[in-house]
Amino acid sequence: MSMTPLEELRHSASHIMATAILRLFPEAKLDIGPPTDTGFYYDIDLDHKLTADDLVKIEAEMKKVADENQPFLRKEVSREEATEIIKRIGQERYKLGRLADIPADEKISFYQNGEFIDLCAGTHVRYTSKLKAFKLLSIAGAYHRGDENNKQLQRIYGTAFPSKDELAQHLERLEQAKARDHRKLGRDLKLFHIDEDVGQGLILWTPNGSVIRQELQNFISEELRKQGYAQVFTPHIGKLELYKTSGHFPYYKDSQFSPVFENDSLARAIGENCSCADAFARLDAVSARLREQVNARTGQDTIAADRVKPDDQLLDGFMLKPMNCPHHIKIFASQPHSYRDLPVRLAEFGTVYRWEQSGELNGLTRVRGFTQDDAHLFCTEEQVAQEVLGCLALVKIVLSTLGMADYRVRVGLRDPDSNKYTGEAANWDKAEEACRAAARTLGVPFTEEPGEAAFYGPKIDFVVKDVIGREWQLGTVQVDYNLPVRFDLSYIGADNQPHRPVMIHRAPFGSMERFCGVLIEHFAGDFPAWLAPEQVRLVPISDKTNDYGRDLLAQLRAAGVRATLDEHSDKLGAKIRRAELEKIPYTLVLGAKEAEAKSVSVRSRARGDEGVQPFADYLAKLTAEISTRALPDKKKPAAPTPA
Amino acid sequence: MSMTPLEELRHSASHIMATAILRLFPEAKLDIGPPTDTGFYYDIDLDHKLTADDLVKIEAEMKKVADENQPFLRKEVSREEATEIIKRIGQERYKLGRLADIPADEKISFYQNGEFIDLCAGTHVRYTSKLKAFKLLSIAGAYHRGDENNKQLQRIYGTAFPSKDELAQHLERLEQAKARDHRKLGRDLKLFHIDEDVGQGLILWTPNGSVIRQELQNFISEELRKQGYAQVFTPHIGKLELYKTSGHFPYYKDSQFSPVFENDSLARAIGENCSCADAFARLDAVSARLREQVNARTGQDTIAADRVKPDDQLLDGFMLKPMNCPHHIKIFASQPHSYRDLPVRLAEFGTVYRWEQSGELNGLTRVRGFTQDDAHLFCTEEQVAQEVLGCLALVKIVLSTLGMADYRVRVGLRDPDSNKYTGEAANWDKAEEACRAAARTLGVPFTEEPGEAAFYGPKIDFVVKDVIGREWQLGTVQVDYNLPVRFDLSYIGADNQPHRPVMIHRAPFGSMERFCGVLIEHFAGDFPAWLAPEQVRLVPISDKTNDYGRDLLAQLRAAGVRATLDEHSDKLGAKIRRAELEKIPYTLVLGAKEAEAKSVSVRSRARGDEGVQPFADYLAKLTAEISTRALPDKKKPAAPTPA
Repeated sequence: MSMTPLEELRHSASHIMATAILRLFPEAKLDIGPPTDTGFYYDIDLDHKLTADDLVKIEAEMKKVADENQPFLRKEVSREEATEIIKRIGQERYKLGRLADIPADEKISFYQNGEFIDLCAGTHVRYTSKLKAFKLLSIAGAYHRGDENNKQLQRIYGTAFPSKDELAQHLERLEQAKARDHRKLGRDLKLFHIDEDVGQGLILWTPNGSVIRQELQNFISEELRKQGYAQVFTPHIGKLELYKTSGHFPYYKDSQFSPVFENDSLARAIGENCSCADAFARLDAVSARLREQVNARTGQDTIAADRVKPDDQLLDGFMLKPMNCPHHIKIFASQPHSYRDLPVRLAEFGTVYRWEQSGELNGLTRVRGFTQDDAHLFCTEEQVAQEVLGCLALVKIVLSTLGMADYRVRVGLRDPDSNKYTGEAANWDKAEEACRAAARTLGVPFTEEPGEAAFYGPKIDFVVKDVIGREWQLGTVQVDYNLPVRFDLSYIGADNQPHRPVMIHRAPFGSMERFCGVLIEHFAGDFPAWLAPEQVRLVPISDKTNDYGRDLLAQLRAAGVRATLDEHSDKLGAKIRRAELEKIPYTLVLGAKEAEAKSVSVRSRARGDEGVQPFADYLAKLTAEISTRALPDKKKPAAPTPA
Repeated sequence: MSMTPLEELRHSASHIMATAILRLFPEAKLDIGPPTDTGFYYDIDLDHKLTADDLVKIEAEMKKVADENQPFLRKEVSREEATEIIKRIGQERYKLGRLADIPADEKISFYQNGEFIDLCAGTHVRYTSKLKAFKLLSIAGAYHRGDENNKQLQRIYGTAFPSKDELAQHLERLEQAKARDHRKLGRDLKLFHIDEDVGQGLILWTPNGSVIRQELQNFISEELRKQGYAQVFTPHIGKLELYKTSGHFPYYKDSQFSPVFENDSLARAIGENCSCADAFARLDAVSARLREQVNARTGQDTIAADRVKPDDQLLDGFMLKPMNCPHHIKIFASQPHSYRDLPVRLAEFGTVYRWEQSGELNGLTRVRGFTQDDAHLFCTEEQVAQEVLGCLALVKIVLSTLGMADYRVRVGLRDPDSNKYTGEAANWDKAEEACRAAARTLGVPFTEEPGEAAFYGPKIDFVVKDVIGREWQLGTVQVDYNLPVRFDLSYIGADNQPHRPVMIHRAPFGSMERFCGVLIEHFAGDFPAWLAPEQVRLVPISDKTNDYGRDLLAQLRAAGVRATLDEHSDKLGAKIRRAELEKIPYTLVLGAKEAEAKSVSVRSRARGDEGVQPFADYLAKLTAEISTRALPDKKKPAAPTPA
């Protein structure tokens, strides 16, 4: 295995950690310890449950090993010798299995530093003293070979860098990321809730989060109206046949909730469309498929293989929609179209469902149900380039409005060696060229990525860098010459003949769930006023100015501002602190003087104390800030509030 | 069977029709011929396929039978005699079966008029001459005994009234209803589309219909903001367990899409929560239930009864949500609440799914997926009366804005003899009294209807009469002391102790689909300007004023008006006719003079020609009409456009 210098350093750090662990816990049994994108880990089997204190001790011991300046020595051995060594060092439990994984024609090697010997393909730095800047970060449970039927081991994560500066920078970024974690902020700011009783990966948008989502939807809807889109609404299910026509079924069948049956589908099938034998065959096929899953886990064979039918003959039912395209296509196809009508642009905030493994779920960013800010454009071939540009312009408006100025673009092309794509090569060529040409006009870096296309066409993905340097794949624009063929779509051209339209799929946000998750981290919960669930907190200094507060509250609400009045009897400091914890953009402090003068003492979360101002002036500035969707005017991103 | 005089008349009309049919088609075999709410029918078995011409002939023959002034004579007979008579008149095919339906302890009677004899319990008018005002309306297919496995018969529908005036009035109303049929108008005005490939009863809201739905949603959202509601968004599925907790599962299990399985639910169940045997038991239960359905139809017995498990042990999966309540409850329960926070009012345009038999589906008004303008209020017991009044006020605003001034109210109470309700009697008493008290304040007629409550509580339903006198059940408000118990909801009271909140469920529109269907019929497609998909059609007299048209189009769109410009080269008359057929509220005719003077010649669909006006004046009036959601100012409802 060939490694980059950084990987080599981290791989060596992993061995040095193992050296230290065996000095402190000689009974530990080791599994594997590779480098990762951001550091390294080692999985160990140890009865003693490791604590944060243990990490400190291990770190100190690692320092010693590094100071001992041990050379890393490689030794190639035969399989028999390898078995002997593993037994000699008492690491049979996992290492013999790992040895067995090594193909017969591959070399078997050990690396040794000081007293520590490990089965290892390499490579490593030359001396342990190269490890100067490292940090152990956390302990997690990890099943041996990732299989939950195996024993759960203790995985120790750490990271290492060539210099202390780089390490410090990385740790700082981790701290920032932790403070910005949208799952934590989502709880603290009451933005969303995931409930086990409803289902993992299914988002309940609570009132605060719903404000943000609705404001984003209003924003995009406004832009869509300007660009001549029409809104539609479609159901969340569709017949299996529909997804077979679209081609979604084979591509999504392993990542989708299983089909919904009609309550009386079998009885009806018998009465109407098929024989009793057919009905039983379908039923048996369902049973068979489920039994196969069971058999695979239990090793029992309880059902004869010849009763199993191929998946696509299985069911006469509905599927939760994994994509909105087929529904929008059916709307397009419900009317005849002339070339004069094109482009037809159909937009919907369409909620789709896909089955993700529970281990892959993560807050708002990996979910099982999500709402795409979806649209499908049906246009002539001549209009494709112009329409793709229009879509890209929309994504740019979205990103710039939200202060996401730093992005690159990926053009996803088909993998020429795969046959998983639908449609003809000539159409693919045209679509890919249209995407390349459009991406070139953006004036931002772009890469071509073969194999990253959708199954129906190439795409342009926006990859946005957030304020702490992490990249997020957000908006997407996809050109599609294929679904119009599968659904036999047509329009009447100027020549009075039927022609095939081209489809463009696009979603500037991607999904409302994921986008909001990213946005929470991007803003660290400090939303610009137009997005903030609560925009203004009115804080009377004492209950003597509560009446003035109520008066202002009514005026703010009449102006469409989301405001509340803090009438609690706490001290002023506590009230202000509460508004700060809730990250409310403006806190207006109301004393007797302010009540007298119809003024307010303004504290901006982004810019600090802004002094006493006539309320009317403040309100005018605020409503302008909201209606123009302004970003907070500040030099650097607000520091996250300490928890 | 005891009949009202009108039923007697219609029942006799049915016999007179059968008399006429047998004169014209002696080979006809009769099944049954009862009166209905609006007329009568007879199901007959006849190889000749009846046509509209045949109806004219049958009607003429009925006239003769009436003129013959035959008396209706009743004769009671023994079962043996009845069999003999049926054989004698050659009507064995269906009448022997109908005879067999008559319980042993009931009298068997025949009625005879002229030569016609029919097995019939009665009652009838005394002479056929009583039938003076009747009309045959249509022919439909109807399965013998409503079972699609039986032969399809021909059903002839007719109606009869005591006077010609009443008949004429009824026929006029039928004509009006036909012209207002939302399915026809939905097609003509391109408001929605139902696609077999997506699924029956699932609405695709096309761009025009989506405008109406979105405007209605904006309207109600505005009112909700004023009333202090918070918006939420929730997923369209939930775990079965959730609906068992809520009690929806047993009540909806026969009228819901079957559960969705997790893709790997069995495999996971084995790994995590239950034994392999459990998993197989569940699987077998699914098979068993389906097989039972099949067995019931085929008479075969292919699976032992002891392998069948009760339904509620069946599945470890998800259900399409039949109601939004459990999701909103989970949002409420995700945070602790103090009495100071109450009432919490959570609103959502929540799409729910319920399984309706395909024969019951009807356009937008009976569907399988629909979006409720739903909300759930969580309040203290003391707040119930006030909150119910708030909900009723909201329904009143909705109805008056849409010109639905004529309504009554039904208070649905529990059926004291049934045990299908959840919750304690004392809570039911309180909730029922709250509903009665609130209904009394409305100043409109209200009735109490035992047995019409929801399973969790009593309700107030609004029954609206449309312009042609038909009644529609629309908005609903429901008081619920029971779900808070099932979900163990609580808030902390002023006494620092936990208390149980009360829930109110309410939906002013009911469902967007059904409400829009009713609205289309109510307005006969002539929507007020604020709801019209297209508000203004610009019609240049010739292409010389196309430029002026484009200028006005831009101004209208900038003002948020939905307008288009008709640049087709047709004649002026054709363009105006097209705008009329599309029921566009305003057509602005643009000639050279208008272009010169920056004026427009206004044709209002509601009020006719409104003359030439400066465009600026017209625009100001129009935007005021739209923003105030004004109804068209006219003396009577617009006559439906002839098809």
